[in-house]
Amino acid sequence: MGIRVAVAGASGYAGGELLRLIAGHPNLELAVATGFAQAGSTIGSVHPHVRSFRDVVLAKTEPAVLADADLVFLALPHGESAAVAAQLPESVRIVDIGADFRLKDPADWTKYYPGEHAGTWTYGLPELPGQRELIAASTRVANTGCYAVTTILALAPLIAAGVADPDDVVVVASSGTSGAGRAAKQHLLASEVMGSMTPYKVGAHQHVAEIKQASGARTLSMTPVLAPMPRGILATVAARPLGAADPRAVLAAAYADEPFVHVLPEGQWPQTGATFGSNSVHLQATADIDSGRIVVVSASDNLVKGAAGQAVQNANIMLGLPETAGLAIDGIAP
Amino acid sequence: MGIRVAVAGASGYAGGELLRLIAGHPNLELAVATGFAQAGSTIGSVHPHVRSFRDVVLAKTEPAVLADADLVFLALPHGESAAVAAQLPESVRIVDIGADFRLKDPADWTKYYPGEHAGTWTYGLPELPGQRELIAASTRVANTGCYAVTTILALAPLIAAGVADPDDVVVVASSGTSGAGRAAKQHLLASEVMGSMTPYKVGAHQHVAEIKQASGARTLSMTPVLAPMPRGILATVAARPLGAADPRAVLAAAYADEPFVHVLPEGQWPQTGATFGSNSVHLQATADIDSGRIVVVSASDNLVKGAAGQAVQNANIMLGLPETAGLAIDGIAP
Amino acid sequence: MGIRVAVAGASGYAGGELLRLIAGHPNLELAVATGFAQAGSTIGSVHPHVRSFRDVVLAKTEPAVLADADLVFLALPHGESAAVAAQLPESVRIVDIGADFRLKDPADWTKYYPGEHAGTWTYGLPELPGQRELIAASTRVANTGCYAVTTILALAPLIAAGVADPDDVVVVASSGTSGAGRAAKQHLLASEVMGSMTPYKVGAHQHVAEIKQASGARTLSMTPVLAPMPRGILATVAARPLGAADPRAVLAAAYADEPFVHVLPEGQWPQTGATFGSNSVHLQATADIDSGRIVVVSASDNLVKGAAGQAVQNANIMLGLPETAGLAIDGIAP
Amino acid sequence: MGIRVAVAGASGYAGGELLRLIAGHPNLELAVATGFAQAGSTIGSVHPHVRSFRDVVLAKTEPAVLADADLVFLALPHGESAAVAAQLPESVRIVDIGADFRLKDPADWTKYYPGEHAGTWTYGLPELPGQRELIAASTRVANTGCYAVTTILALAPLIAAGVADPDDVVVVASSGTSGAGRAAKQHLLASEVMGSMTPYKVGAHQHVAEIKQASGARTLSMTPVLAPMPRGILATVAARPLGAADPRAVLAAAYADEPFVHVLPEGQWPQTGATFGSNSVHLQATADIDSGRIVVVSASDNLVKGAAGQAVQNANIMLGLPETAGLAIDGIAP
Repeated sequence: MGIRVAVAGASGYAGGELLRLIAGHPNLELAVATGFAQAGSTIGSVHPHVRSFRDVVLAKTEPAVLADADLVFLALPHGESAAVAAQLPESVRIVDIGADFRLKDPADWTKYYPGEHAGTWTYGLPELPGQRELIAASTRVANTGCYAVTTILALAPLIAAGVADPDDVVVVASSGTSGAGRAAKQHLLASEVMGSMTPYKVGAHQHVAEIKQASGARTLSMTPVLAPMPRGILATVAARPLGAADPRAVLAAAYADEPFVHVLPEGQWPQTGATFGSNSVHLQATADIDSGRIVVVSASDNLVKGAAGQAVQNANIMLGLPETAGLAIDGIAP
Repeated sequence: MGIRVAVAGASGYAGGELLRLIAGHPNLELAVATGFAQAGSTIGSVHPHVRSFRDVVLAKTEPAVLADADLVFLALPHGESAAVAAQLPESVRIVDIGADFRLKDPADWTKYYPGEHAGTWTYGLPELPGQRELIAASTRVANTGCYAVTTILALAPLIAAGVADPDDVVVVASSGTSGAGRAAKQHLLASEVMGSMTPYKVGAHQHVAEIKQASGARTLSMTPVLAPMPRGILATVAARPLGAADPRAVLAAAYADEPFVHVLPEGQWPQTGATFGSNSVHLQATADIDSGRIVVVSASDNLVKGAAGQAVQNANIMLGLPETAGLAIDGIAP
Repeated sequence: MGIRVAVAGASGYAGGELLRLIAGHPNLELAVATGFAQAGSTIGSVHPHVRSFRDVVLAKTEPAVLADADLVFLALPHGESAAVAAQLPESVRIVDIGADFRLKDPADWTKYYPGEHAGTWTYGLPELPGQRELIAASTRVANTGCYAVTTILALAPLIAAGVADPDDVVVVASSGTSGAGRAAKQHLLASEVMGSMTPYKVGAHQHVAEIKQASGARTLSMTPVLAPMPRGILATVAARPLGAADPRAVLAAAYADEPFVHVLPEGQWPQTGATFGSNSVHLQATADIDSGRIVVVSASDNLVKGAAGQAVQNANIMLGLPETAGLAIDGIAP
Repeated sequence: MGIRVAVAGASGYAGGELLRLIAGHPNLELAVATGFAQAGSTIGSVHPHVRSFRDVVLAKTEPAVLADADLVFLALPHGESAAVAAQLPESVRIVDIGADFRLKDPADWTKYYPGEHAGTWTYGLPELPGQRELIAASTRVANTGCYAVTTILALAPLIAAGVADPDDVVVVASSGTSGAGRAAKQHLLASEVMGSMTPYKVGAHQHVAEIKQASGARTLSMTPVLAPMPRGILATVAARPLGAADPRAVLAAAYADEPFVHVLPEGQWPQTGATFGSNSVHLQATADIDSGRIVVVSASDNLVKGAAGQAVQNANIMLGLPETAGLAIDGIAP
């Protein structure tokens, strides 16, 4: 008998990815999966790829249904987690994939999100120094954002080491379409997206606050771009150097023991395709020959390390399981 | 200590997929991986997604290197397996992913392939009646072709049940580009493929002989089409009905106990995306309202059930392991 | 001063393509473009690519607005053309891109479409024998369906010449996503479509009736497949041969003088990418070496020859303009 | 009788695009098209989409063949133009699509390209102040690079107006695969590219020198990324502001009279798909709310404004034709 976990908001892309990961996890067992409009449908009809749970019917998202689990994954739209979480007993562990509990400063919340700030939970990025222990001791963990985790892992060690100027960071990051969710919107139609790159929320993306809080950056320009692929984030982080340290060496030292963060051999650059389906982040860094800027490129799968995989990694730590249980280090390519 | 397996021809797409599956397999251990032009390179440079073996160096493809393994996967270009296999002792089990040993009739070989017919090994499609037992008793197994397995599973039970006319079958099947291999060719460039559907080998594809041999079809028209996606095969099989049996019911009965063959609920049609990364085949069937023809649609991942996954499934059977070990039933989507 | 044309339903994909073609047409001038929900918006915001009309505001779709034009293109949802057409004077020429007036037999309409049969207009496929003259003499023309035109051009000459059996035709046709329109639907999201092939309306597509009516086929099985590309239709037509005539020669003779129908040199197969943006259809045919079936492959751009381009071609004929005016013979690739 | 133009290097993507544009140009006539390996092949077999010239046979690239034309487009690999150009009489106008003659400073050439610096021709970017007149007076024009033109148009007016700091510019730019040419290389295979974003030449791209020379930037970090689409460039230019001027207003004023450069309405961001097939560049700019940086996003079609279209625009100017002749302002979408 495995540890019983619930997935609230199982009909979306992050929810579907959680179901896939739970099905393949040696220690977890699906207690219940819930939805809103899709409650009453089988998982087989909502997520045709998740054959393991094909006959499981989605329940309605209600606290009573979820409270029966040992751990609940919340994969709800931003702003909806707080209400559900408030009705779950402290004994039920929660990993929230939404943004509700990530930010410490209510002013940051108000700047980028509608509604009131719900509070702050332990930030679920185990690769940050000391964070793994905090997660292990928590019953409430706020998962990272997808752009955020991909950028923070590229940037935080450089700022911590005094190698990159926290006051001058420029990020341009491309995301696959699954990052925008499964709601039917015209600008996300295949016809509009295939063959096209489209920037959005230029100069004002909500992950900026989260990236600054967790990476130590103080001033950051970020431009997100929607790319014609279903998954993957490629973040280019251009930071002004302080001193002449080799940025690649700093990153390699920081992540030497991390199973999911891979600083590639010199000269080999990350590509999102190589991270597909895995919980890995691939990194490479160099100094720009014209400007001298540090350029770090970071690739991940937005639905795994950027959402469901990160959530399972956090759950593993909270539950005392091996941190890599049920998570792939290897991507699927081509 | 796991069972020691070797991969010959590890630098191609099927080889890379074998490496990924072996890395995640609970019972197998990589003894050696070999290549030709890429011998001497690390797996990390050749397959950036296979992080588990990133520091393993590809050896040269030589029998002495391979003979040390308990089982050898041959992922070589068509026509090159026979020479290597001839130099391996009988005690070393072999699964050949190439076409060399699939066909029984030398005349079929000569009609579709260059060079001489190498011989016939046990046909590695466990879902055919009685075939699982033959595979278990064999030390030499010829893996299926990717179009072949996708089509045969859709067709064989209908012909066996006397429901479809073996003398009048029309197949149109689309394949992702990885089915065409990793050699650099102009017509496989992303620029040429993205946004375009392109038929090839129209009226004369080499899998026709294999499909006929294993499905019982006697006359078959097949049109293969290159589709703008990296993986996946979608086969549409239109067969003249004999009698009025429900084709879906026949398929559902045939595969009721198969872990990897899924006849979808009525009205739900297969899509290749739902099989991505899995060893599953999804099937659906109906009767055409204008012509009365049986139309079966079959979807699979050409690199898994169509190549490396099928090979691991065969190896599992040959080695007395659980048939599903190391293989995913669930796809990765979106 | 050009001939004044109106586009009703200008906010969809066919409407946008009409705007683009009108902007580049030497003889036509845009009188008005109308929409429903988008009325009041500029064309520049609805169709960012149509810079020529960027400041033109979409009017509401009302007969009074349209009646002022010399010719009206109706690019409305199926079933909505009849009501608008009924309120336009006979002196205003109309080309209807919808299905409303294509079918002759009300029973065919009822079998495949909801609502009542609106009537029958001149069928707008000039490459059919004698049809060009009928179109020239008409003030009301029903444009072809996209699957229909691509299939009919491949099939009609073979049936007319007694070379293909009209009672045994199997068609499998893939379409880019723009053929499904611009309404936001989950199954058309980029995340769902990219990397996947998905059949739909298997055994019961509404274009079957239109294809039979115009090609002479009497029994036809058609399977449509949604392909991961924005535009393009690739139809594979497998017909039982009558006699031993070379199907390619029959097609080449039929279209020798047609500017938009291209029978490719022997051995060169059509690809949808080569027709992108053009009003051309590319054809090739062979005899299957196993079954002897005639296999014709036909490629077109569903928004041009399958919709807006065909409409302009019909308009050119109706207005006495050069038939190719404003239409590209060359595609855009890669 | 049109003006007689030649295309040297007609078998590549830029060459094919030139052929398409020439076929649709009201004043130009194709004198000859040449190739290397493909000499002797028909254009119909090399570029199946260019039906207008389907029976034209590619000649061998030899000066004698080209010298007969009024104007020669050189679409040769970088480094090969100089040798051909040297053998053409001054009376034959030349537009070189390659990089050979773009740079003024031999040191810049040596820093980024192999071989010796060939010299400097008039820089073929008519939208730069005063440049149109220089082009009109030249018989030798060096076309812009594709990244270069997309970035320069975004940046030059801001630096010229003293609004952006020339010493601190960060560019991240994504390109479709056709920008990498048509030679068969493994990393350009559809299997490798689809579903993946891949950076390359990070910190050291050869267009940096060209961008600095033409935009006035003095220090520039540029990261190019290969995107999974056949065409299109999306450049994100993040520049440190000098003063508080509205960058959008500066750009709008600079390009008010330009037919091919479109500053979009406030809030509407460029997308590469909207420029497909057109000679247009779409621009938008804002100030980043966290960092205050100016962020300009610029989109173009790399084969049109980034190569063949720009070349035709330059030729039009050199030949005294209307500058927009034969060039589309409207893109093709979706």
